[in-house]
Order: sequence, then structure tokens, then C-alpha cells
Amino acid sequence: MSRWAKRRADKERRLTAVGGAGEIPRERIVETLQTLIAPGDRVALEGNNQKQADFLSRALAEVDPSHVHDVHLLISSIARPEHLSLFERGIARRVDFSYAGPQSLRLAQMVEDGQLEIGAIHTYVELYARMFVDLTPQVALVCAEMADTEGNLYTGANTEDTPTIVEATAFRHGIVIAQVNERVEKLPRVDIPGSWVDFIVVADKPFAVEPLFTRDPRHITELQILMAMMVIRGIYERYKVTSLNHGIGFDTAAIELLLPTYGESLGLRGSICTHWALNPHPTLIPAIESGWVESVHCFGSEVGMEEYVRARPDVFFTGRDGSLRSNRVLCQLAGQYGVDLFIGSTLQMDADANSSTVTSGRLAGFGGAPNMGHDPRGRRHASPAWLQLITGEGPIVRGRKLVVQLAETFHKGGVPAFVESLDAVELGQKSGMPIAPVMIYGDDVSHVVTEEGIAYLYKSDSQEERRAALSAIAGVTAVGLRADPKRTAQLQARGLVAFPEDLGVRRSDARRSLLAARSIDDLVTWSGGLYAPPARFRSW
Amino acid sequence: MSRWAKRRADKERRLTAVGGAGEIPRERIVETLQTLIAPGDRVALEGNNQKQADFLSRALAEVDPSHVHDVHLLISSIARPEHLSLFERGIARRVDFSYAGPQSLRLAQMVEDGQLEIGAIHTYVELYARMFVDLTPQVALVCAEMADTEGNLYTGANTEDTPTIVEATAFRHGIVIAQVNERVEKLPRVDIPGSWVDFIVVADKPFAVEPLFTRDPRHITELQILMAMMVIRGIYERYKVTSLNHGIGFDTAAIELLLPTYGESLGLRGSICTHWALNPHPTLIPAIESGWVESVHCFGSEVGMEEYVRARPDVFFTGRDGSLRSNRVLCQLAGQYGVDLFIGSTLQMDADANSSTVTSGRLAGFGGAPNMGHDPRGRRHASPAWLQLITGEGPIVRGRKLVVQLAETFHKGGVPAFVESLDAVELGQKSGMPIAPVMIYGDDVSHVVTEEGIAYLYKSDSQEERRAALSAIAGVTAVGLRADPKRTAQLQARGLVAFPEDLGVRRSDARRSLLAARSIDDLVTWSGGLYAPPARFRSW
Repeated sequence: MSRWAKRRADKERRLTAVGGAGEIPRERIVETLQTLIAPGDRVALEGNNQKQADFLSRALAEVDPSHVHDVHLLISSIARPEHLSLFERGIARRVDFSYAGPQSLRLAQMVEDGQLEIGAIHTYVELYARMFVDLTPQVALVCAEMADTEGNLYTGANTEDTPTIVEATAFRHGIVIAQVNERVEKLPRVDIPGSWVDFIVVADKPFAVEPLFTRDPRHITELQILMAMMVIRGIYERYKVTSLNHGIGFDTAAIELLLPTYGESLGLRGSICTHWALNPHPTLIPAIESGWVESVHCFGSEVGMEEYVRARPDVFFTGRDGSLRSNRVLCQLAGQYGVDLFIGSTLQMDADANSSTVTSGRLAGFGGAPNMGHDPRGRRHASPAWLQLITGEGPIVRGRKLVVQLAETFHKGGVPAFVESLDAVELGQKSGMPIAPVMIYGDDVSHVVTEEGIAYLYKSDSQEERRAALSAIAGVTAVGLRADPKRTAQLQARGLVAFPEDLGVRRSDARRSLLAARSIDDLVTWSGGLYAPPARFRSW
Repeated sequence: MSRWAKRRADKERRLTAVGGAGEIPRERIVETLQTLIAPGDRVALEGNNQKQADFLSRALAEVDPSHVHDVHLLISSIARPEHLSLFERGIARRVDFSYAGPQSLRLAQMVEDGQLEIGAIHTYVELYARMFVDLTPQVALVCAEMADTEGNLYTGANTEDTPTIVEATAFRHGIVIAQVNERVEKLPRVDIPGSWVDFIVVADKPFAVEPLFTRDPRHITELQILMAMMVIRGIYERYKVTSLNHGIGFDTAAIELLLPTYGESLGLRGSICTHWALNPHPTLIPAIESGWVESVHCFGSEVGMEEYVRARPDVFFTGRDGSLRSNRVLCQLAGQYGVDLFIGSTLQMDADANSSTVTSGRLAGFGGAPNMGHDPRGRRHASPAWLQLITGEGPIVRGRKLVVQLAETFHKGGVPAFVESLDAVELGQKSGMPIAPVMIYGDDVSHVVTEEGIAYLYKSDSQEERRAALSAIAGVTAVGLRADPKRTAQLQARGLVAFPEDLGVRRSDARRSLLAARSIDDLVTWSGGLYAPPARFRSW
């Protein structure tokens, strides 16, 4: 038996070394981690773009590197300074991750200095997928709101990735350690069964969580409103898009805030935008309150939206306790196979519609966008919107997901969004990546929208035609200047390019007064006082 | 509040009508379902290709259609006669499903007769994805092995889809009813928390479960062995494929049984086939026992493999209780984003490598194969095998999943596998489907293997070249007869086509004596008596 149960025996040995599973006294967390983690272990540290097991990451950074070294860290988002301190101190050596927003510059420097090895850069769900294949963790450090006396966990609204990381670890004889904000007799509900969890530790303060999905309507520009109007008329209305996912940003916030005004004036309520795979964006409140939204399933939660979500259980997925149940893997599943459209903003796009959010010198990673922003070729069920994208002829055809990219032709300061070569290409070469870190590939993109118009790329017959359609809406960027007016007119006649006037959108109507809410305060009012924005968003 | 909590109020009303949540006495199940289910409800009935909530499906078929009618059934696999009786009796009206193997003829007839409406035909995970979007269930009827006094569920080895269906239902205020084989004081482990479950009923007999992943090595032919040898040399060894998924069938069983013999003779142990996303195939036992396999994560379980899996916890994902924890959605995630290769058999392929298992008059559906058998374009991490499939040039390229299709050129009785037009095309037209039900699309296929050789389709520059490569290995079928020997020689020289001799495979070596096990009895011996094959597979 023991020949085939080495992992289980190893776990037993480690548990015995700390006196068995159970609650770890807070002051003993560093020495306990030192005993439980062995050199070379794969350690999954929960930390995504929202919640962070920060008590445990701080404790891990304090272990003695002569005891714990060469750890292989698995982490969604390298977000906190101590994540990289693990490598500086020699505790960790190798990392597989998905996103490194705030730490991306320092990360790139450490790779160059040889202080850190990157296994691969993933999307979120790819990293979890590998936890069930070749990256099963020996130890998982996760976080939850509460634990009961049997070790059952309550995550509250931010369930996110915790069940997935715990399942991959617990069922392969890894050790699961959960930091909790408090220990209680009875949980409001059970999110993760206690028999999957080995250790609980009550953290010194509630786990860190970031309000990443809040956009202040005050900053939405009239160009963004113009683009949002074109999206509603030229895409949502045209294909009758009912199920969708919005990337985060002011561009998509503008669309959300136009539904109850501009969308309503077009009589579209009930026929578009009814079912969402989306975090609880505060800018969706007016559309929900106006009766546009039937359901929203969430990857994670959003700080300040707790009471609003609790009061709208017909719309959101909530538990018996009333709070949101989010789940990143299941919402990714919904977003990939259950919805017809993804729309997101990009910072940089090349002439073939490849795009990237990479800027020079930063190893930012992918996050979740690529899993939404591609045509899921494993899909087999048909829907009206999906079928409308069929362009081929013959007996064997298939529909296609709408993958829409939004880009203003120039950013503030006159930096063009359309470029000859993505910064990602140079970054990839400099960093020794096997291929350039492209966020969304051009051949997956069905539509590109700028303030100039819409390119219906999926209708093009050739690479050359795609390029011509894209340059027709790329303004006075280098890519846009290639457009030939005669060619553009032909593409316009064939429906590959549409300008606002073709869509019945008047540029002069694109005013901030069209927004259902023009400030965070307006959103609070729409919510009947239920939305409680974080302090940084309050201006009154 | 009530304006936004109609679902919750509706659930409360129904629960009150039956005297509250809890255990349903077995003899009252029909009347309880009659009270809990309203006309027009979406009802998720657990029933996949393995386990079936058959006590609940039989009970549902007995309700009075004057009380319960026009139900919208959501079911993975229409597998049991009573599933269709629901429609004959008028209890159900519409169905969204994934697979209808044994009932596919009757299903097609009922659609023609107007007794049943099909929403859409999905893959398994697409149907679950939609349960979080536009097909959230009002009622879920699921099954588990045991429940404790608090309603916590123990699924045992066949966890499969239960947690996903329950999550989609419970967190949108639907009613969850679980049939269990027994009720106990304390569960071996908790698979689903009791606070997600409303009702328990102890079934009249253990839930039905099918041994669908068992293939008797006795039936493996020498042609299949030849193809398996080519796969090992021409694909697994060439690309150093370590992480993979095998479709079910004798072709893939042959590969599994050649690893400890032919694979060993090539010195490949440890460098290929180490990490699997796969149900516990009995034919994998010799490879596991010979030390080839580091890990196997499972969609579901397999009848008879329980004790073997329990005794091999280093390889399989098992719980504290020792039994397998399977999970279809997470294994699909692993298979899509975490492994480098899918290989499966097909019954019929056209000249463009599109394939289908549809045969005339049957609405069989898709099951899970399309989600494994496509190139996942949302993938961003690189691996050596994935990178080797890059053929493009320029700064923006991406790797590709190996999607391998196996087909003998002729079936028994002289029916060709390669055809001018798939039966699926005619079936789709006759059944009024929006598009033909193709299982694996040709443009997703990287390699096709027949007893003649391997076509390396991903290397082709054009549609015409793909066709030429495919016809070169299609034997004396109509597609194969198009092959031009001169063209074939060119393709062979460029590595687009390989014949056994190009791969160092001698046809005369393809003997049954190469199989590590030649019977079910041999598999039992390899397992040290731990594998307990179902009676139908016993011949001694």
C-alpha cells in the first residue's frame, strides 16, 4: 500500500509534526508554516485581482529560508510586495502565475536578475486547470470570512477561486490552510466543507480585497458615449445579443449606463442584455433598477455592492444567508460556453487586430480576458446571435461568438492605439518568452469599434480585406492613414464598415446627459442607498 | 423587497406547501414532486452517461400531468425510457440536452411527431454553463450515495456533475431534491454541503450507473495495435506529449495497453503520458502498475474500479475517505486548458477531416468530445508540445493543441469511414437543425491516423494540401482513391504524411502479444485483484 500512498503518508507525517490538524494559534503561524512546508513544494497562494490571503502571505514571507526554500509558487495574481519578497529571501524560486499588475515592473527586473524563474504565464482558469494535471499543490494557503468549529468555511460574497484551489489540493493529499476573519459557532452557510480543510487560523485583520470593478461615471467621456451608442445600435440591437460579458473599463461602463436611457428610447429593453456573466459592476445598477437585467452570475464580488446584491436576489446568485455566491471557474464556464458576446477595451492594436495591454518593461500577464475574448470552438449549441455570424457556405458551417474590441484611436497625450507592432512583441523577445504575450488575437475578433466607426471583421474574405476594414476606422493613426477612401466606400457598401450615420447614431447626441448616472453619488441614489462605495470613490 | 425576491418567495411558498424542507418519505415522493414542481418549470434531472437519478426520474414520470405539465427538462443524457415517457405523458414539453445515445431513435421520432421540442443540443459543459445564464433550474433532481442528518451529501466516486447542478439551482433559489442510497449519522466525507440541499429521499434501490469506460482487451484487433504503435512513435514520442486525454474506445485502449510493452521498449517511460485527464479506464491499469502514470484526474468514475482507485491514492484524486473525487466540470477544465493532446476515434470523416458519430435517423447529441477535441484559443501558457505545432511565421504566432482522430478506413461489413458527405449533414437537414451536428471540425484536427499512416494536417498550407494529405492515408475509400501517388510522395518527403515504415513501425510487429493485457482477467491480475469487473465483462 505505502508504495502507492506516499503523498498521503507524507501529509500525515507533516500533520503529526505540528500536532495534528485544527486551529493554528495566530502567533504560531510562521513556525507552523515552516514545519508544514517542505523545500521544493508547490504552494498555491490564494491571491487574485480581488481578495488576497494576505495574512498567510505575510507569514510565509517571514519563514526561515534555511528551512523553507525553493518553493514553487502558484498564484493567480502577484499583487502584493511580499509576494516578490518570497523570491528575494530565497523562500520561493519558481512561479506559475496569471497576472502581475502592480508588481509587473519589479517582477520583470527580478527575472532579469535571475532571482526568480517563471514556469509559464497563464490565464486564471489555465492555472487552475493545471492544478488538476501537472501542478497539483502540496500546500494551499487560502482565505475565507469565517470558519466554524468543524472547519467548514464561509467565503461570503467573494467565493471566487477558493473552492477550486481547495479541491485541487485536498483531493490530492495536499495540506489546506485557511485564514479566516473570524471563527464562529454556526456559519451563515457552508461554502467549503470542513473535511476538505486541514488548518484554520484567525487572521490579524480581515483579508484584503480590492474594488477593481468600480468606475466613476464622472470620468466617462463623450467619445466613449458615442462608441457605446454605436455598440448598442450596430451590434447589440443588430444581433439581438441577450447573453453577454463586459470587460471592465469606462467604455463598457458607458454602455451599461446608456441602456436605461438610449437603449430604452430604442425600445430594446427585454430584447438585449438580459443575461450576464459579470462581476457586480456598480454601473449596472441603473439598468437593473430599470428592469433590463434578468440575471447576473459573477466571477467574484465587488466592494460596496454587498447590500445591494443582497436586496436583489432575483437578479444575482445568492445563498440562503442572502449574500452573493460567486465562483470564478463556473462564471468562466458560463462566459465561455453560455454567452454570445464578449466586449472589452484594449490599449493597443496592430493592423491585424491583435491586441495587448502590455506596456514596455512590464510582465503584466493575462488575467481572465483571453478566456472570454476568443471564439470557443468547442461550442455546439446554436443561438440566434451566434448563427448570425456564419459567413461560410456549404453543408459544414458553424456560428461564432461575438468578440468585440473597443479602442479610441488615440489615448490622452496623443499616443496612438493602432500601431505597426505591439509592444508585446518586443517585450516577449526581451523577456525570452516563447511567443509574444498577445491578449486577444485578431483572428478571434469579430468586431472592432472606435470613435470613427465599426469594422465588421468577421465578414471579411481575406486578411487584406480585414486590414482595410480596420484601417477604415483607425483614424489618423499610422494604421488608419493607410485607408483608401474608395476602398472604404466599397467596404461600407458591403457592410464591412459602418460609420455613425450608417447606424442612425448622431455624433451630436453623444452627450454626458445621456448617462443614466453621471457620478458615484447618482449610482448610490439609483440603488436606494444600498450601494456603499469605498471611501476613495466618495467625493461628497 | 418582494419586488426583487420573487424567486425566493416562490420557493418559500412551495416549501411551505409540503410542510417544509427535509426528508421526503419514499412513498410520498410522487405527490411531493407534484406539489413542488409548477407547470412550465425548468427542471434539471441528473442523468449523464454514467450515474442516473433514476428513482427520481421514475417518480417524476408518475406525476399527474394535469398538475405538472409543460416542464422544460434540462438533462445531460437522455438515457432511460422514462425520460421520454415524460413527454409522451405531457409532463414535459421542451428539452435541452447533450446526449441521447440509447434513446436517440425514439427521440428523433417524437420530435417528428411534435411530442417534444428541442431547445438546443449541447456538449455537457455547455448545458451546465447555461444553467448559470439563461437556463437556471427551478428544481434540480440529483443523486448521491448518502446523506447525513443535516442533508450533507456524499457522492462517493461518482461526484461527476452533482455539485455543478446543485450550485446553479441552490444559489438561484431553486429547489434541490437529492435521492440517496442511504441515510447515515456521519458521512465518510462531505461532497456537497447540506445548506445547498432542500430535500432528501432514500431511493428504493441504489442509483443506476453504467460501466461505459470498460473495453475488453480481447476485442482489440491487430490493425488497432498497428495504429497505436504509430501514435506512440509518430505523435507521443515526436512531440513528447506528457499531459493528455483519451477518448473511449478500442483504439485508445490499445494505446494504453502498449505503453508498458512497446512504449517501454522505446525507452519512453517518464517522458510521455505522465499526466492524464481521464476516467479510470481499466485498460490503464498495466501502465499505472508499470510506473508510467503520475496522475489521473477524472470526469466521473468507472464501475468496478473503486477498490483499485482507493489503493492508488498517489495517482488518483481521492478524499479523506479514500474514494475517488471526480468532477466533470473541473476535469473538462483540465482537459481543455491543462493538457496538450486529445485523441479519439471517429466513425465517419469527410475529405476535410470533419467527423461525426451520427448515424442515420438518430439524434445522438455531442456529450463531451467537442470540448476536448478542439484547439482552445483562450489558452495562453506555452508547453513544449504545444509550441511544436506552430507553423506560421512572423512576430505573432501561437501554439496549438494536438487534436488527433483515429479511424480505420473501413468498418466491419465494408462500410467506409471516409465519405464524401457526413450522414450528419443529411440528418441535420431532415431534423431541421440550424447547422449540421459535427462532432469534431476538420480545422481543429491536427493529426489523423489510419491503419495506412498518419496525416500531419496542421502542417498543410492550404485546404487543398490538407485534402491531399488526408486522402493519402484514406485507403481504398472514395476519399482515398483520389490520392495521387506522386503528390503523396511529395507530402511524405515534407513530413505531411508518414507511413509505418517512415515511423520505424513494422507492420508485422503489430501482434496481440504486444498488449500488456489481452483479457479482462489479465487486467484483474495486473490490479492484484483490486479491479472488480462488472458481471457482463466476466468470462471466467
